[in-house]
Amino acid sequence: MTGKLYGLGLGPGDPELITLKAHRILSAAPVVAYPAPDTGPSFARQIAAAHLSFHQVEVPIVVPMRVERFPAQEIYDEAAETLSRHLDAGLDVAVLCEGDPFFYGSFMYLFERLSGRYETEIVPGVSSMMAAAAALGRPLAARNDVLSIVPGPLDDETLRSRIDAAGAVAIIKVGRHFHRIRALIEAMGLTAHAGYVERVSLPEQRVLPLSAVAEDVAPYFSMILIYKGGEGWNASLAAENARHNGMTP
Amino acid sequence: MTGKLYGLGLGPGDPELITLKAHRILSAAPVVAYPAPDTGPSFARQIAAAHLSFHQVEVPIVVPMRVERFPAQEIYDEAAETLSRHLDAGLDVAVLCEGDPFFYGSFMYLFERLSGRYETEIVPGVSSMMAAAAALGRPLAARNDVLSIVPGPLDDETLRSRIDAAGAVAIIKVGRHFHRIRALIEAMGLTAHAGYVERVSLPEQRVLPLSAVAEDVAPYFSMILIYKGGEGWNASLAAENARHNGMTP
Repeated sequence: MTGKLYGLGLGPGDPELITLKAHRILSAAPVVAYPAPDTGPSFARQIAAAHLSFHQVEVPIVVPMRVERFPAQEIYDEAAETLSRHLDAGLDVAVLCEGDPFFYGSFMYLFERLSGRYETEIVPGVSSMMAAAAALGRPLAARNDVLSIVPGPLDDETLRSRIDAAGAVAIIKVGRHFHRIRALIEAMGLTAHAGYVERVSLPEQRVLPLSAVAEDVAPYFSMILIYKGGEGWNASLAAENARHNGMTP
Repeated sequence: MTGKLYGLGLGPGDPELITLKAHRILSAAPVVAYPAPDTGPSFARQIAAAHLSFHQVEVPIVVPMRVERFPAQEIYDEAAETLSRHLDAGLDVAVLCEGDPFFYGSFMYLFERLSGRYETEIVPGVSSMMAAAAALGRPLAARNDVLSIVPGPLDDETLRSRIDAAGAVAIIKVGRHFHRIRALIEAMGLTAHAGYVERVSLPEQRVLPLSAVAEDVAPYFSMILIYKGGEGWNASLAAENARHNGMTP
């Protein structure tokens, strides 16, 4: 009897945004795995930390920072091999995932290696995109809006056409592309419609209109939301609301 | 001292997909409001039911079925008036929302009427879109994919161009447009890339390749996910996985 593999979405960072289901599974799993940088703490582990106990075997999957965006597949070959030894021993394995496991998550690399051989269950989580809209105090999308999620590393031409075609846009993986993306949004005349959220739901969260961001760089965990909706949403007003209405933790 | 308004995302339907935060707030709120049809139970209330007690005042916001898509704004004027009486009396009000409050949710109508006058907090929830990808056993989007969320009621030309331009697509609000949308996906040669999920995360959930759907109509709570990604995802294989791997509840 082999163990069961879980991909657990833990939400955007606030440990209270873990679901009851993920909480139950992560508290009980004999083996807990998570992505970890080569130096410093694992963000996924930090989200779950309060619910882990010393009875659990922990398996950090070390992904060197310099390749974090598209990590070498050998890392996942090796991790899958390690996890399969636990699964073969009949132990359930919970893989901790920031946000949602299948929304631009690295869990897919383990899923494609292991789900054919072991019973597997994905527990969806709260995405940082939903949390960013909550923090900005404005809808992500409404009615019959087309919402496009656009990774920031894409080239300007692609970004421009995708932003043009949608009523609402979430630009993810902003990070070191921030300066270029902001210039593009400005050139498109959309700055007044754009909100910026950094480290959403964490104590160090920042929420502000894009026009008010002083820096030229942004951390990896940052996002720009654009809403062109006809209902007069105003980025600075929304950010003001967010601050005054206690939407920053 | 006025009360605080909460917009609580309750997730796609499985009561265990409520977050710890939403659970804490909904258990303690003296007043609980939720959208309800003119006949039959409220889906949002059903998700939360196990955590409600008879001490709480319940405020159903009745939205007649025939206008459920874009309800008359007078309904929300009246609901805001009712909730403001509780808030003025110093009572916190939790508005229960299916999925995530700001992802195509009707909570925005109350938010725009009340957030300027009362302290307001949005608690993001697990979206049915993330739950659908989990149920299908395939990533929603990965790497630098553009993911577009496209409401099914849009016309064929708009649907076609948005599906063309994205690497991954979630078609929401499928319902009575199912037949037309399936024909369009077939004409675009994308049927083999499309998965269908109905009433995700509920006991009556159905997960299957689009090609295997026998009916010509779909319920309101259904979704089609298309993934064109280069990594050889196969809709029927994924649905097979989903079934065999216990991803159906």
